[in-house]
Order: sequence, then structure tokens, then C-alpha cells
Amino acid sequence: MNYKIIRYILGSVVCFEGCFLLLPCIVGVIYHEQVGLAYLIVSLICFLCGGLLILKKPKSLKLYTREGFLTVALSWIVLSLFGALPFIISGEISNFVDALFETVSGFTTTGASILPNVELLSQTSLFWRSFTHWIGGMGVLVFILAILPLSGAYNLNLMRAESPGPSVSKLVPKIQSTAIILYGIYIFLTLLQICLLMLNGLPLFDSLIISFGTAGTGGFGHKADSLASFSSNVQVITTLFMILFGINFNVYFLLLFKKPKQALKSEEARYYLGIIAAVTALIVWNVRPMFETFAQALKHVAFQVASIITTTGFSTTNFDQWPEFSKGLLVALMFIGACAGSTGGGIKVSRFLILFKTMKKEIQQIIHPRSIKVIRFEGKPVEHGVLRSINTYFAAYMLIFIVSLILICLNNFDLITNFTAVAATLNNVGPGLQLVGPTGHFGDFNALSKLVMIFDMLAGRLELFPLLLLIVPSSWRK
Amino acid sequence: MNYKIIRYILGSVVCFEGCFLLLPCIVGVIYHEQVGLAYLIVSLICFLCGGLLILKKPKSLKLYTREGFLTVALSWIVLSLFGALPFIISGEISNFVDALFETVSGFTTTGASILPNVELLSQTSLFWRSFTHWIGGMGVLVFILAILPLSGAYNLNLMRAESPGPSVSKLVPKIQSTAIILYGIYIFLTLLQICLLMLNGLPLFDSLIISFGTAGTGGFGHKADSLASFSSNVQVITTLFMILFGINFNVYFLLLFKKPKQALKSEEARYYLGIIAAVTALIVWNVRPMFETFAQALKHVAFQVASIITTTGFSTTNFDQWPEFSKGLLVALMFIGACAGSTGGGIKVSRFLILFKTMKKEIQQIIHPRSIKVIRFEGKPVEHGVLRSINTYFAAYMLIFIVSLILICLNNFDLITNFTAVAATLNNVGPGLQLVGPTGHFGDFNALSKLVMIFDMLAGRLELFPLLLLIVPSSWRK
Repeated sequence: MNYKIIRYILGSVVCFEGCFLLLPCIVGVIYHEQVGLAYLIVSLICFLCGGLLILKKPKSLKLYTREGFLTVALSWIVLSLFGALPFIISGEISNFVDALFETVSGFTTTGASILPNVELLSQTSLFWRSFTHWIGGMGVLVFILAILPLSGAYNLNLMRAESPGPSVSKLVPKIQSTAIILYGIYIFLTLLQICLLMLNGLPLFDSLIISFGTAGTGGFGHKADSLASFSSNVQVITTLFMILFGINFNVYFLLLFKKPKQALKSEEARYYLGIIAAVTALIVWNVRPMFETFAQALKHVAFQVASIITTTGFSTTNFDQWPEFSKGLLVALMFIGACAGSTGGGIKVSRFLILFKTMKKEIQQIIHPRSIKVIRFEGKPVEHGVLRSINTYFAAYMLIFIVSLILICLNNFDLITNFTAVAATLNNVGPGLQLVGPTGHFGDFNALSKLVMIFDMLAGRLELFPLLLLIVPSSWRK
Repeated sequence: MNYKIIRYILGSVVCFEGCFLLLPCIVGVIYHEQVGLAYLIVSLICFLCGGLLILKKPKSLKLYTREGFLTVALSWIVLSLFGALPFIISGEISNFVDALFETVSGFTTTGASILPNVELLSQTSLFWRSFTHWIGGMGVLVFILAILPLSGAYNLNLMRAESPGPSVSKLVPKIQSTAIILYGIYIFLTLLQICLLMLNGLPLFDSLIISFGTAGTGGFGHKADSLASFSSNVQVITTLFMILFGINFNVYFLLLFKKPKQALKSEEARYYLGIIAAVTALIVWNVRPMFETFAQALKHVAFQVASIITTTGFSTTNFDQWPEFSKGLLVALMFIGACAGSTGGGIKVSRFLILFKTMKKEIQQIIHPRSIKVIRFEGKPVEHGVLRSINTYFAAYMLIFIVSLILICLNNFDLITNFTAVAATLNNVGPGLQLVGPTGHFGDFNALSKLVMIFDMLAGRLELFPLLLLIVPSSWRK
């Protein structure tokens, strides 16, 4: 076990967080808010602590799978702990668990809030909350890989542990270049959305908040009614960009390198868009009488479907009041989630696709016992190891879900609240139904439940294994 | 595809049902109920139809996996269709879908009823309802295998498709002997329970009804409040026998052949009993204030835990009013279910055990990438094919669950009712929560929902694949 490299990477993460924290300081200066000072203090603490950790460069830069997973898990925890400090120091969220919940919810792009009324927060803190979405969306270690020239071969282990999806591939042979391309696409799409929103008359601050929430598929907003009070244009643009950020970034890479045919063939993206279209049609049929015009129904439904399947969690209407059929579909979407290799959460369309292909193959095997069929995905045969890890993922997912649900039931809220609270945090969605619906919040849960959900949010964002490794004693043995 | 053997076996099934239907006729005679006539008519119809089907014995008795699965699926459908006729002819349940629901619920040992008040039914029909549990518990094809000397080698395919669990093994080399031993144990335990109940002062009729419901882990009773109004002794005996019928019959076989050490080593049985003990302790802690004495709390909780994990579905108290923590645990038990090779339903303890062993192995693989570990269960290495079929089972389970839930949501009942209705039917439990709780019933769902749940009950009892094969067009190609 190479503890030194873990220490070194954690140090770098904390230093970068120090840099990130300077941005809300600037917001504080612009809006003349004293809160900005808390961010400056924490930024300095970060530079101090991080600096101490990276003082001594480790000799060996080797990072095996185990170290990769542990480093990523620890990085996210450290990131969240420091990120929560400004809320506590400024007194805006004085309770430690609450502040940590809010920060983890930000970095993991969940968007679940413990605040009953978000509009009471300072502009500075609103900016930080949303900015954590943007950092967490593509991943802080991918960011570090793009900037720091760490030794090559072993860094795939870091990237693999942080990037969502059943199998992570390098777009180009060099990891650093892959990370740069990913962040390049991410920044370009974010800037495009900011520009489009500003062209539609939105102030810069509002455009930034909404774009950060959309890009990271996070869902923190700065209004109590999320996006309900914004113009139709803003809502439609956001719908479009939520869908775009839920697509595998591989597709954009292929488009960028002039392979549009290959990009259009992406199986996962096609099913993802197909699911969005089908579910939107079904819900529009179901809720049509609740809206004045068909266009209105379509606008709200498309927004909500895009928001839930990409696990963003914005809302333009209180979908908790929709009929059960529509709510059932939305809950199913929470689990499906977006594409692998996007910024979205959930179980991912590709995992379901491969799972159903396995099922089809097994049924074929009963009908023709001697047939030999290989499971293909995106045109390539799926490796045995990937199949196995998908099955393990589902097993671990169920285990975490059931244990979390039972622990959260100790609150004695109704089962729908408890069930959707776990679903919304483990899938990094944000809102659920009933007490945690679009107009509700997570503040009333007891501390144990909040800690369970903090674990769930991290486990969901990092796709379970890094967090599981963290709590298995044998990971720590030499 | 050997259609002739399928026809021949279906014919035998219908003939045997004709015999079974003579029992309620006798009950009708004893209680002077005219309803008995309906059962006599249907019995004669069965002999006529069944007789025509078995008139011509097929030359080839070969039955491959595919034919085995299809035969079992069709047998259960035919069994249910004929079994529903007496309800319709007698007018006691005049609606066709309702009568079919009630009969499928009986044969699949679910115990979910569409009747608002079961006490309005005649003794004859009450007997038939409960007797279908007893037939369905061990399986009608296992019964046929025990009695008819069909050709040997191919019948494992029939048994495999009807018996619950991830892998079915013959207890002794000959299939017929295996079937006879299984039914022998089944009959012995049932008779034992009947005797014990009668010794505790219960009339024969009541003892039969309760024992049939317990043995098949079905749950149909003859009182509106299930087992609440019976004496403590009756409740405790039933608790014990529910637990006994949920254990893998393999364990009894080993005890019978004087291998008690091996029997006690059964991994699945030990985890099964461990789960019962642990959950009972947790719920007793949670609901203690709701009961006068600790003994009372323990009695009711142990009964309910045994009833739900074995998927029987009897109740002695309205657990829908228990705190959310307890209800959450009970819902989790619905999914876990009993042991493989028992008469209980659900996903089965062994499937979960093997799944978690796979998960543990995968995590070990991340920590020590070059380690090679074989998954062992009950002391033996688990074959790759079994692992694959367990994973496929979970995938198919999720698919059926989600599609059923969304279709049932069209009723616009609350989500807890809908969710637990699917869980209670797909796992063959019986009662759920809210509208389908212990004091509720399934009568208010629309016809589509009832058909979906009929499919779910059959799919749950036959462990998904036979029913899935039935609806896949390629199964029917030559």
C-alpha cells in the first residue's frame, strides 16, 4: 500500500479546493457580503493544510486499483469536509451534519437540500453551493489529471474510480489528454448554456447558477420554487442542456473528431433519448387535463422527465401532485439515470441495457441449449469482467438501498418519503416525493438519517465500490 | 418441439384436478351445501377434457428444457382456469377475472384475496381455496412425477421448472423416488400440524384450513381477521410450522437418513433462521409499547415475521399500524422470502447469499487483483451456470416488477398500496400495506391490474422463466 501517494494526491485536492474557494470570495466582494470572509479564511486553511501534505513528493508514483479507489473515496470526503467549513464559520448553516449534508449534496451533484427556504442564503453561499455541482459533475480528480502531469500508466485507476459507468475507456492514448478533452467539452457546453441564458435576458448570476446546476446535473437553485418562476425560454433551454449533459461525452468526442456516423450509432444514447421520448409521451397523456394547453403540458413534462432521468432535480411544477402513474414513471427514471460517461447519476442506461441483453441471452440458452451467443454492446463484445462487475454493482446497490431504507425508517416518516429519500440520494437526483418532494426539504430527518444519506450520495456518485472499499477492513492491510 | 408430450402432460394435470375437486364435493355433502354440485360438475368436465387429451399416448416421451418450462407454465394456467370454474358456476365469485385471481392466488400459495369478507363464502369453497394452497405448495407436476411412471431422464426438466430455488438437485438418483420423498415429508408435516391443532381443541375443518394455508405457505383463512381470534396455542403452533415449511426440504431428507450433522450445517437454513431471529428482535424492540406484555409482543411479532418471510401471509394483528421501521423490515422480508426447495416464495435466502458472496469476491478482487477465489455455497463450489442464472433472475425480476408497478399505478391508488401489491403478489406473500394491508383486499383494482397480478403470482411461483418463455415468440418455433 503506497500511503505516500495517497497523501500527496489528497494534498493536491485540498490545494485545488483552496483555489476554488477564491471564486465565492470574489462574489462576496461584488455583492458586498461579509460572508465572503468565511470563504477567504477556509481558502487559506486549505492552502495551509494542502501545502503541508504535498511538501514531500513521494518517490514512487505507483497507484494500483486498490489505492486508486481509496484515494478517490478519501478525496471526496476531504473535499466535502473543507467545503462545509464556510457554511459553519459564517453561521449560515451552523449545524455540522447539516453543513456536511449540503456540501456533499453539492459535490455529488445530488441537489438535495436541508434548507427550508434557500432564498435566505447569501449570494456568496448560493454561488458556492452551485459551483460545487460544477466541480463534482466532471470530477475533481479528472480535473487534477488534466492539470498535473502525474505518472501516466497508473492514473487510469483514479479516473476509473471517479468516472461513472460500467467500463471507462481512454478517448486518446494519454490519460492527461483524455482529461483535458473531457473538461474542454464540459467547459464549452457550460459556456454555451450561460450565453444562451444571458441572450434570453437572464442576469449573469442567475445564468451561472442555473448552468452550474445543469452542467453537473446537480439541481441546486437559488429560488424556493426552483425554475418555476423563470420564462418559458429559460425552461426550454435548460431542458435541452439537461438532456445534453446526460449523454455520454464519448459521443461529443466522436462528433468533435468528425466521426458523426459512429456518434449517431451510440446504442446507449439512442436508448436514453428513446426512454425520454417514450416516458414524456406517456406522462403528457396522463397529466394533460392538469394543464391549459397541450404545449404547456409538454413543456413541463419534458422538463421534469429530463430533470429526473439525468438526475438533475430541477422542477418547474410540483410533480408530487401528479397522478400515481406519472409519479411511478418518474421514480423508475430516478433509478435508470443517465448515460455512462456523462455527468448524470443513477444506475445508468448502459448497465440496464447490458443486463437485459444478459437476460435475453439466458432465455435463448433455455430455448437452444447448445447455442453460443456473445453479448455485444456499442458494437463490441462485452468482456466477462465487465459483466461480472455489473452484476456485483446491482448486488451492492440493493444491499446499500435496503440497509439505508431501514435505518431511515427509524424517523417514522411515511414509507414513500423514506423510499424516495433513499432513491433521490443514492441516485444523486435531489427531490423525491411527499416530505422530500419538490416543495419539501431534507432538514427534518434525524442526524443518523442524514449521515446515512451522506454515505448514499457519495456511494452513488462514486458508483459504490470506492465507498465500500473504504469500510472493508481488509482494504487497509499491507 | 414435442407438442404431443405437452398435450399428454396437460391432460394428466386436468385429470388429477378432477380428482382433487372431488374433495370439496365431500365437504359440500357433509355441510349440506348446494355449492358442492358446482364442484362435481367441474370435476366431471375435468375428467372429460383431461381424458380426451390423454387418450393417445405419445410415442416419444422426450422432454427438453424448453418443453419442460412451457409444460409447467401451461399446466399452471390450465389448472387455474379449471379451478376457477366452480366459483363462477356457483355464483360465489361471478366475475371471471376475480374468480381466476382468487384461484391463481390459491395455487401459487399467494393468499391475496379479492373478497371483502371471506366469511360469506360457503364451507365448500373455503375448503377448495385452502386446498389449492396445499396442491400448489409442493407443486402439481412433482405430484404427477411421484405417481405416474413417466420416462426417467427427462423429467428433471419438469421438476426444475416447478421447484423453487437457484438449482434443483435430485435427493436420490431416481426422479420418481425424489418426488415421493418430497411429498412424503410434506404430507407428514401437514398431518402433524393438523393433529397438534386438533389436540389444542380446534375442530377438524379449522385445523385443515389453517394447516393447508401453513403447509403451502399460502395464507388463505376462513375468518375475516385471519388468525387473530384463535387461541395463543394455535398461533404459536402455526408460527412454528410456518418456519418449518420455509426450510429447504433437503434438510429434512438429511435428518431422515440420519445425517443430522450435514443437516445442521445447511448454510441457507442457518441464515434463514438467523434472519428470523434478528428481525423479530428488532421489531419487538420497535413495537414493544404497543402491547401489554413482552410475551404478547414477542408472540405477535414472531408470528408476523414468520408469516412474511415464508410468504404465508397470515396475520394475528394489523401490522399496517406498526411504526415505519417495522413495516420497512417486513417489506424487506417479503423480497427475501424463504429457503430454496421449501414451499415458500420470494427471491429466496440462497439467491441473496450467493449474490453477496459474489459481491465479496469482487471486492476482494479489487484489493488483490491476482487472487483467484471460488464461490462456495453449502460447502460446494457454485457452478458458473448457476451464478449466471441468478443474475438473470434478478434482472428479470426487476423488469417484471417495474413494468407491473407502472401498469398498476394506472389505478391511481397511493404508491405504497401499488408497490406492496406488486411485492405481495410477485413474491407470493398475500397481504401488503395500506389498501391491500391485512384488513384490506385486492377487489378494488381494475381488471388490467388484476390480470397483471395474476401474471405476477404465476411468475413468482414458477420463478419467472417459465412465464417469460411463454411470452417469447421464439420459444414456439420448431
